[in-house]
Amino acid sequence: MRSVEWCDGKVRMIDQRLLPTEFRQVDYDDYRDLAQAIRVMVVRGAPAIGAAAGFGMALAAQQSQSRDRDGLLADLRTAGDVLCAARPTAVNLSWAVARLLRRVESEPDPAAIPDALLVEAQALADEDVEINQRLGKHGAELIRDGDTILHHCNTGALATVDYGTALGVIRTAHEQGKQIHVLVDETRPRLQGARLTAWELQQLEIPFTLIADNAAGHFMRTGQVNVVMVGADRVAANGDVVNKIGTYKLAVVAQANGIPFYPCVPTSTVDLSLPTGNDIPIEERDADEVTGITYQGRPATPEGVRVANPAFDVTPHIYVTGIVTENGIASPPFDASLRQLVEADHED
Amino acid sequence: MRSVEWCDGKVRMIDQRLLPTEFRQVDYDDYRDLAQAIRVMVVRGAPAIGAAAGFGMALAAQQSQSRDRDGLLADLRTAGDVLCAARPTAVNLSWAVARLLRRVESEPDPAAIPDALLVEAQALADEDVEINQRLGKHGAELIRDGDTILHHCNTGALATVDYGTALGVIRTAHEQGKQIHVLVDETRPRLQGARLTAWELQQLEIPFTLIADNAAGHFMRTGQVNVVMVGADRVAANGDVVNKIGTYKLAVVAQANGIPFYPCVPTSTVDLSLPTGNDIPIEERDADEVTGITYQGRPATPEGVRVANPAFDVTPHIYVTGIVTENGIASPPFDASLRQLVEADHED
Repeated sequence: MRSVEWCDGKVRMIDQRLLPTEFRQVDYDDYRDLAQAIRVMVVRGAPAIGAAAGFGMALAAQQSQSRDRDGLLADLRTAGDVLCAARPTAVNLSWAVARLLRRVESEPDPAAIPDALLVEAQALADEDVEINQRLGKHGAELIRDGDTILHHCNTGALATVDYGTALGVIRTAHEQGKQIHVLVDETRPRLQGARLTAWELQQLEIPFTLIADNAAGHFMRTGQVNVVMVGADRVAANGDVVNKIGTYKLAVVAQANGIPFYPCVPTSTVDLSLPTGNDIPIEERDADEVTGITYQGRPATPEGVRVANPAFDVTPHIYVTGIVTENGIASPPFDASLRQLVEADHED
Repeated sequence: MRSVEWCDGKVRMIDQRLLPTEFRQVDYDDYRDLAQAIRVMVVRGAPAIGAAAGFGMALAAQQSQSRDRDGLLADLRTAGDVLCAARPTAVNLSWAVARLLRRVESEPDPAAIPDALLVEAQALADEDVEINQRLGKHGAELIRDGDTILHHCNTGALATVDYGTALGVIRTAHEQGKQIHVLVDETRPRLQGARLTAWELQQLEIPFTLIADNAAGHFMRTGQVNVVMVGADRVAANGDVVNKIGTYKLAVVAQANGIPFYPCVPTSTVDLSLPTGNDIPIEERDADEVTGITYQGRPATPEGVRVANPAFDVTPHIYVTGIVTENGIASPPFDASLRQLVEADHED
């Protein structure tokens, strides 16, 4: 089962907000509703929202009332803008939309465009799974028998179309028979580690321990972590990594303890047009993500509290040991190595 | 109103587990119940549990059925062991118990011991407030007009008998008319920042913003934090600091960004008998502190998850800019400076 798939003319997605207590799939037949679903995080994870946006473009073609090519193209561009605006930080949204729009440009017959887009979106989704499996094999070389891997947020099947990025690496190492253990940090505010990664690891029967985000430093300092593996929402040309809030602290503390830190990403997450991470927009999300919890049955914050809730942070490349992609592992200096791996992909 | 006080032959404490939604005081007339209250964190914060243990010894003297001095002393030693065992990490528990036992030793008449212990416990509590006010004045010199202070856990009136340590410093700076802003991290798992520090700052009308612990690095890296101030549960002779889990990550990231990091503690928290922080026992608390939350009304973790929940971590002294005490601010090298400040206290 995939986190995002096309089913009978609709986009079917797992509602990740309900996990781990409820597994429910929801169907979308309007790209605007799909964009809203991305915004409220029915689906999340950079590769998964890229695939969702691809299918969203196929929906938009199906929905368009325009009979001529220019009208259809205008409708698709509007849809692309709506989808890209749903989340500002991950590059995969705009990458997927651009790929679908390029496909339109090579299709002269407007009547053929809806089917062509659906085939392209489906290809994008299928490739994501295949890319993650390749990425997993490269990354698993970094994991030794007996290792404990510290993992942040969710980068598994749910964050992608299937299989996962950093969690796909962990899964590959496990499938190779390595005895591994995963330290899963809960990943406040939205608790993707506790809610989603713990749930996925249970299903995969990979041994893990859940910890509060605050505890990660203690385990690193006391020699209980061999490697840190995370995903990313955008990687700049110089190797700066934008990922779920809290990643930066992990990377700095990993380096202070001599622990390697590896973001694991498809090359579609690498944005060579951005020289550094400093210019990447950081999404600010609702205060309710921070205040909307109870602790032991009681609200955890007083009424009327001002909250800041940045969803991502930037980890400067100096803290990055290597970047695992489906085309191999980029090493510093990243300007050269990342470009080489991204362009290798284009030649495939 | 104090977090811990003696009232009509009983120890009255604010039940901090119920804040911020409910303010309730509870009375204890048995030192064993008081020890259990310390264990389950009705009262928490190193100075506050020290004061509670002092009153617990006064309760034990009141409860003892022994008529002779040796019997009473044996009962008090038993009570001291029970109180010290309630929480293993903070030194203030054993410091308070030792102070009360010393008082017994200087009192030859067994009939006079209960009153003598009550007077001593009351003095200890009163001194805590006075110490915090002195500490606040020293620490406030480190805060400039316009500063944003990043604060972890709760170190306020609730964590002490009254006024607070790091939060007392912030309060002093505010009372001096400095325009300051506090970044309050929520402090998972028990959310003392969100539940208690936010509540105290609201009462004091000091401007603050609540953030997830994961966001602290982002604010430090982007130049939005001027100084980090925390409390501590034990400080070793070399300046290693044991404090609420998550402190270590903050200290490492603060240093990486050139931001000063100051633990603020009464000298009773300095344990000169411990050369380094490595030998301090780290309390492991119930998994339920991590799993016992809901997010948007739903449980945040799957059933049957293995959890690790260390309550404290060790921040090596190399990350500590200075240690604020009631007798002044210790600078590196801490071996000499801390001893000087602790011994200054003894001469007072």
